Amino acid sequence: MPRFKLTIEYDGTGLAGWQRQKDCPTIQGYIESAVEKLTGVFCEVIAAGRTDAGVHACAQVAHVDIGRDITGYNVLHAINYHLSPLTAQIVVIAAGQVDENFHARFSAAGRKYFYRIINRPARLALFAGHAWHVPEPLDDIAMHKAAQLFVGTHDFTTFRSTQCQSKSAIKTLDRLDVKRSGEEVHVFAEARSFLHNQIRNMTGTLRLIGNGKWTQDTLLEALAAKDRTKGGETAPPQGLYLEEVSY
Amino acid sequence: MPRFKLTIEYDGTGLAGWQRQKDCPTIQGYIESAVEKLTGVFCEVIAAGRTDAGVHACAQVAHVDIGRDITGYNVLHAINYHLSPLTAQIVVIAAGQVDENFHARFSAAGRKYFYRIINRPARLALFAGHAWHVPEPLDDIAMHKAAQLFVGTHDFTTFRSTQCQSKSAIKTLDRLDVKRSGEEVHVFAEARSFLHNQIRNMTGTLRLIGNGKWTQDTLLEALAAKDRTKGGETAPPQGLYLEEVSY
Repeated sequence: MPRFKLTIEYDGTGLAGWQRQKDCPTIQGYIESAVEKLTGVFCEVIAAGRTDAGVHACAQVAHVDIGRDITGYNVLHAINYHLSPLTAQIVVIAAGQVDENFHARFSAAGRKYFYRIINRPARLALFAGHAWHVPEPLDDIAMHKAAQLFVGTHDFTTFRSTQCQSKSAIKTLDRLDVKRSGEEVHVFAEARSFLHNQIRNMTGTLRLIGNGKWTQDTLLEALAAKDRTKGGETAPPQGLYLEEVSY
Repeated sequence: MPRFKLTIEYDGTGLAGWQRQKDCPTIQGYIESAVEKLTGVFCEVIAAGRTDAGVHACAQVAHVDIGRDITGYNVLHAINYHLSPLTAQIVVIAAGQVDENFHARFSAAGRKYFYRIINRPARLALFAGHAWHVPEPLDDIAMHKAAQLFVGTHDFTTFRSTQCQSKSAIKTLDRLDVKRSGEEVHVFAEARSFLHNQIRNMTGTLRLIGNGKWTQDTLLEALAAKDRTKGGETAPPQGLYLEEVSY
């Protein structure tokens, strides 16, 4: 059956995340409903990463098998046509037929996320729901330096959700950059794959470096402890964006 | 009575614009309600520019007279405290006492706006309500070159709303730059002041340059015609951001 790769943008605000759930608005649920309207049968849509409730995506990647003679162009337009009445927050931005061995999750060679902090005293208005408001001044240079301690291969037990289903907590982080632009502080993360909540937990911990509550030594001790209770807070979902998945 | 300068950020989505209106959610209306809760009396809040319904502001400037011995810091926090239960879309990001001759509108020496176009086939999801979706490919280089024809002092009758209340249609445009960044095309506009809908009408006209329907000559003829019906469409409000007001 022809397999299609879908690139999907979504505003995660008010949605219960990627994964299909009964009686909850989810990205997977909405796209599967749209595909079913196109094909007449249920077709599972599998994503590169199951983003949490409130997390956004510029370019999530998923695959779906469609038992019909149809072009990628028509798949894109048909899914968007059927999505529109369901939600304005999700759109397929690219679609194309791929080899039947392609798997959105298992074939992925790399994932890029960014985390957006707005660092100012006043609460958010224009970007409410699309960034994390951190009121106290953050030292982004110190955050960037400390972030380099995360780069490389480590046991990230301290920085994964206690709900994380991954067998191993050992992951290789390729990049963790912190950059300020005016009142915005962005965290750029790249790896082959991430543990559940890993970026949000690392970002919540970097806040403690940025506001001076933690030193690099505290961070190294937390990493070595392999204990979630020794890590910083989990940064909220609305600052996180899945930017790119590479294959 | 002490006068305060307020710098205000807002997400204009679903709001009926700056200007107070009966039974409509407006930025002026909400801020005046918050100020009244602080002072116990109605105090008019006057802005640098009365943005239209759906238009956003990173830093609108307004002034208000408050007959109380209070610091700028406390004005900011008190207004935000009283605004919060009314709307999450408006926030005062700075406040300070100014000379009683300061007037947010008449003292303004310059206004900076940007207009955000997302130029791609697929409709918007992540930035719906915060940009203009233009599906056909736009030649941003041609748009930038044509935009220079608007720079300088001209009679902008063709590019102002027929509702515009300004006595003269002659304005001096200091800057109109068009820049692409990936699928986004931004129009940056600076002038001492603008006519009603001037930026949205110029942007709608630049689209016609970008998609090849108009040449620079068509634009010059439209400008010379001094007739709104000879201009391009009015770009929608949700792409426009008031970025800065200088004094």
